[in-house]
Amino acid sequence: MGDSTNPVAAQYVLGLADDALVYAQRLGEWISRGPQIEEDMALANIGLDLLGQARALLTRVGELDGTGRSEDDLAYFRDEREFRNVHLVEQERAGFGFEMARLLWFSSYQCELYAALRASTDEVLAGVAEKALKEVDYHRDHATQWVLRLGDGTEESHRRMQAGLEQMWPYVDELFATDELEQSLVAAGVAVDASSLRPGWDAYVDGVLAEATLTRPEGLRTPPGGGRRGVHTEALGYLLAEMQHLHRSHPGATW
Amino acid sequence: MGDSTNPVAAQYVLGLADDALVYAQRLGEWISRGPQIEEDMALANIGLDLLGQARALLTRVGELDGTGRSEDDLAYFRDEREFRNVHLVEQERAGFGFEMARLLWFSSYQCELYAALRASTDEVLAGVAEKALKEVDYHRDHATQWVLRLGDGTEESHRRMQAGLEQMWPYVDELFATDELEQSLVAAGVAVDASSLRPGWDAYVDGVLAEATLTRPEGLRTPPGGGRRGVHTEALGYLLAEMQHLHRSHPGATW
Repeated sequence: MGDSTNPVAAQYVLGLADDALVYAQRLGEWISRGPQIEEDMALANIGLDLLGQARALLTRVGELDGTGRSEDDLAYFRDEREFRNVHLVEQERAGFGFEMARLLWFSSYQCELYAALRASTDEVLAGVAEKALKEVDYHRDHATQWVLRLGDGTEESHRRMQAGLEQMWPYVDELFATDELEQSLVAAGVAVDASSLRPGWDAYVDGVLAEATLTRPEGLRTPPGGGRRGVHTEALGYLLAEMQHLHRSHPGATW
Repeated sequence: MGDSTNPVAAQYVLGLADDALVYAQRLGEWISRGPQIEEDMALANIGLDLLGQARALLTRVGELDGTGRSEDDLAYFRDEREFRNVHLVEQERAGFGFEMARLLWFSSYQCELYAALRASTDEVLAGVAEKALKEVDYHRDHATQWVLRLGDGTEESHRRMQAGLEQMWPYVDELFATDELEQSLVAAGVAVDASSLRPGWDAYVDGVLAEATLTRPEGLRTPPGGGRRGVHTEALGYLLAEMQHLHRSHPGATW
């Protein structure tokens, strides 16, 4: 890809960046609300990893789309309809079982994604994927340990973990939905076909659920949500209002 | 001090632990609300440093008071009146200038405090102070850079930074208030006299304000707030309700 612009690739990378950016906010909300101080710190650190990924990816977006927008321009001065994240990450924080289900679904997806993107012909994107893979592998391991502990724990913890899995399940399919934009980049070697990531994800997740004596949710799937096209649930609006408040109130301020 | 219990020292250390614990929550609230993604990350990381200090100090409290309570027991199962933090750290998050004022005041205090506590006869406390000093020195430097940048920036940033200093000033005196409990531990070489930390703090802060073309607030001092005796402002109750909700709703739950 070199240094030339590629607005289509910019749109693709923006989706990955927004996933990381938005989920980082949700994880940050666990500071002071987790089951242990140690766990608060772990979730906050996972959120910080994702923020780091978002920054690198947003910077690449600004290069690829030729506008030269900075990571902050992109984070703070886009409207809801311009965000390209999947619906999974924008859902409001709920219980701890819910969050561990989301983290398992999402980090397992990111593991497959970044592993594949290491071979991207966009060398910057490949480099981000290489570095991020180490991080998300740890995130997945963290979620796995909790899912095992809660699923194979007390009757109450099992019930709550199963409920968390079911609450998040309708948002899984969207992770693996591909579209024409993505397909055109797959042909060029820039992107990976999201649907090709599903078998690896299924194998990992099914193994964890079986060991945790949990049941894979069935019959709860909903149509793909359209996050990659800028169609969002109500929850994102509130999140962006928080995140962008300072900048919208003081446009152009250096602080 | 060795391994013997010392309930008076436990009360002293609890004050320092609660300062770190409560301020960590406030800083965590900046995730997604700072002026730059980079700054969100910096404030979250400072909060994580403070959480780490709180954990080490709370563990020491459980040893010293002979109850064997864990860091989590102490964080989640004490009532507001049992918290010993100063009022500065419990105040609700306001603007960014406000937060940089609070961080400058508080980290400058912690720098003086931990530097002195390295000589504590409580070797565990001395060890925590040694490690934490490196962290809070960075925090102070971070706050300093922002205070200089905003104070010596635009007319608007100067005005807001000055307003932040004044908003936080009434809570400064409490940092340096000493009491009989502390004095008895000073005599034993465990604690430092908080009032002895003021000259070093004044010298540092005055230097920063002068360089930033900001004015040291005057005539705004209020009586010491009584945080070290468990007397708190309304803001702490809301913070604790958030922090303790999960544990109070599910007592004895392992998650």
